[in-house]
Amino acid sequence: MSLDLFLRPCSLALIGVSRKTGDGSNVLENLLYYGFQGRLYPVNPYASEILGIKAYASVKEIPEPVDLAVVSTPRNIVPEVIDECLEKGIRAIIVVAQGFADSGEEGKQLQEALVARARRRGARILGPNTFGVANAFINLNTAFVRFPLERVPIGSLANSGVLFAGTTRLQLIGKAIDLGNACDLDFPDGLEYFENDPEVKVIALFMERVKDGRRFLEVARRVALKKPIVALKTGRTDLGVRLAQSHTGALAGSDQVYEAAFKQCGILRAQDFGEFEDLIFSFLRLSPPRGKRLVVLTITMGAGVMAADAAVAHGWELPPLPSGVKERIARFFPDWMDVGNPIDLGITQFSPYGRKDAFAEILNVVMSEDLYDAVLIITPLGSAGGFIPSLARESERHKDKPIACWLYAPDPAREMEREYMKIPRVVVYPTIERAIRSLTRIREYELFRNRVTL
Amino acid sequence: MSLDLFLRPCSLALIGVSRKTGDGSNVLENLLYYGFQGRLYPVNPYASEILGIKAYASVKEIPEPVDLAVVSTPRNIVPEVIDECLEKGIRAIIVVAQGFADSGEEGKQLQEALVARARRRGARILGPNTFGVANAFINLNTAFVRFPLERVPIGSLANSGVLFAGTTRLQLIGKAIDLGNACDLDFPDGLEYFENDPEVKVIALFMERVKDGRRFLEVARRVALKKPIVALKTGRTDLGVRLAQSHTGALAGSDQVYEAAFKQCGILRAQDFGEFEDLIFSFLRLSPPRGKRLVVLTITMGAGVMAADAAVAHGWELPPLPSGVKERIARFFPDWMDVGNPIDLGITQFSPYGRKDAFAEILNVVMSEDLYDAVLIITPLGSAGGFIPSLARESERHKDKPIACWLYAPDPAREMEREYMKIPRVVVYPTIERAIRSLTRIREYELFRNRVTL
Repeated sequence: MSLDLFLRPCSLALIGVSRKTGDGSNVLENLLYYGFQGRLYPVNPYASEILGIKAYASVKEIPEPVDLAVVSTPRNIVPEVIDECLEKGIRAIIVVAQGFADSGEEGKQLQEALVARARRRGARILGPNTFGVANAFINLNTAFVRFPLERVPIGSLANSGVLFAGTTRLQLIGKAIDLGNACDLDFPDGLEYFENDPEVKVIALFMERVKDGRRFLEVARRVALKKPIVALKTGRTDLGVRLAQSHTGALAGSDQVYEAAFKQCGILRAQDFGEFEDLIFSFLRLSPPRGKRLVVLTITMGAGVMAADAAVAHGWELPPLPSGVKERIARFFPDWMDVGNPIDLGITQFSPYGRKDAFAEILNVVMSEDLYDAVLIITPLGSAGGFIPSLARESERHKDKPIACWLYAPDPAREMEREYMKIPRVVVYPTIERAIRSLTRIREYELFRNRVTL
Repeated sequence: MSLDLFLRPCSLALIGVSRKTGDGSNVLENLLYYGFQGRLYPVNPYASEILGIKAYASVKEIPEPVDLAVVSTPRNIVPEVIDECLEKGIRAIIVVAQGFADSGEEGKQLQEALVARARRRGARILGPNTFGVANAFINLNTAFVRFPLERVPIGSLANSGVLFAGTTRLQLIGKAIDLGNACDLDFPDGLEYFENDPEVKVIALFMERVKDGRRFLEVARRVALKKPIVALKTGRTDLGVRLAQSHTGALAGSDQVYEAAFKQCGILRAQDFGEFEDLIFSFLRLSPPRGKRLVVLTITMGAGVMAADAAVAHGWELPPLPSGVKERIARFFPDWMDVGNPIDLGITQFSPYGRKDAFAEILNVVMSEDLYDAVLIITPLGSAGGFIPSLARESERHKDKPIACWLYAPDPAREMEREYMKIPRVVVYPTIERAIRSLTRIREYELFRNRVTL
């Protein structure tokens, strides 16, 4: 059975959808808001219509065929709802509720019974404990929280809804499957689906565990050669593993096993959310550099030194400018200055040597020949806007050369962060890892100070 | 001589200030914009007044005593300007120009001559190759670039102007000294000044090298016991060291030596700009946790697993909720749910279990007793606003407990980043390290793929 029934359904039954609207948690309301064009059948025995759309007391009363059922009822009536879906001939079913394998023995048995029922009728279940699916390309999102949809060519597979919301930098819903407890549909199914999906260029995995390791490796190895697979594997520590087990009710397995397996099949493992979003962004937007020759253009040489450190530590070379190239850009610099790589653009931005065309010309020169394989631009936010036209032009001219940027200076636009930071003794961090590391280090310092002064 | 002449001057001579205004690079214009209240004496032989303020042909013509001279002339006339300053009796002099020890042998000799001149008259020189000083508490900033000033209790010492601009998250100019080439004033001088400055709580070092290692260690060791010193030491690799040398004309020394020295004297070394701003933020705003018991409140258990991983990896404990505490918050959760730590708040946010008061009550309970030493809050941006009142209240009640937050979901407010990301084949990264790491990994993947498929 193709997962198209889940990701490209023509008709949806929304079973257990609430009459309550207006708070962003009504699936029907959200689908109308996104502009989903398929047929929608709300099922709620206490309503004859919801938001002007005819409601049915049971899925069996729907007069047309239904591709996908989104079951949002409390867990205790899920089994009978599933039975009705199967009788109706529905072959793709999303079970939203928590309280199955994620909550002890009774829930686990309930979950197993669901799967057994569905298998007998050739139906597939996504979940339980899931937001369901999203496909921005057809304005579909079954999550009971309203998220912005953006048509980015990312296919996400996750044991958690966190990817639906996206990270602090990135909207990750192009297409997404929240596997939840993964009682039936699991990572290999999703990988095989995205493997041949022309709307997906990068596959993102947010993984707590995989059940059928052998099949996962077999599929991942094949898919990784076609499209980059970026993985954030959580449940790394003993506690994390235990939590992942109770979160989705599955054994998580040793982290070293995953590490080795990922490496073997070419999955790119990210160490934290920061690297996860970096890698997804990078694969989505950059051509791979053809070699390891990097040129750095920086407004401040202090940051240029940092860039050289980081580049060398990662195996890059920063070849100096050939003399011919130096001559072509010499007019932007004072005589006594020896222009190197990183190129210190600071002096070209301010009087007496300031020249408005310096950045554009220098970028053009260093990108125009086969001198460098990748470009790193470092500039304060305040100067960044002026560089956009030249960046756009050169990027268009040299499609094989990736351009990475660091825009520094405080960004007053990050409003919610600023609101939080107004509260004393509260700090917002860009990633969880950075939050934990920071708490650790302020504690260590206190211990250091006490030890020395006592 | 106290550095008060540099950081709290009552009168400034601005030597070589341009008549050109309006582009943010005129020091006089910037100081008026900031609202600096001291006396200002522009010196420019070609102007009788600039921006309505009387200008002098030479510093010697200024009829009043001058605390601090900012010398912005091209390097070739700096020596004679310094002589005039010394004759005028000025004892604090900032030399802005590049082209001294940062640019070869001739520049190095020029620089040595300046220092020798100043020493004979008991004057101190800051720079050359510097933005000078900033002190937001008196609206002072001598940089020839206009930056926002914020009265944060951070004292910054740097070999580069990058700290004046601040990072992507943080304004680092409470008070700042850009040491530039550090021909005379160097890190130990700044440390000693900030040591007893009640307006400075955290000291930030952006360091390429220090000249007098022994004095630095002696001073840093003493100061680190009074105030946290956070350091970003660049020039780590051979190339970085060479660049740092040519950037400020001083020997940078082995990175291992710095590493050991920092550890010995209790300086907190950051690995990259991200950690640098995290640590400064943290020391500025958080009390050190009294123990290692962490409680995590999260809207998504997927992120809760990540938090547990990170916490355990850094030596934290996540003690479960005592049964009495569980009873007090049981009403917010379904019967079948075993509430642990991390506390999964997801279910409390949505129907049928959604309760508006859940976050406030649960936060109150877990913070109110001596159960935990630190709190980590994980929430999507969309829910974050509603939590502010309870966070503010509990933070006020429990001043010894730090609260760290991760707010996820894409932030549409980051406008410049979004503008850059519209350009094909351009990616903006939050730090240099992350930019380099990402470029590296897309290349590695390409190599992997070619190796396997060839």
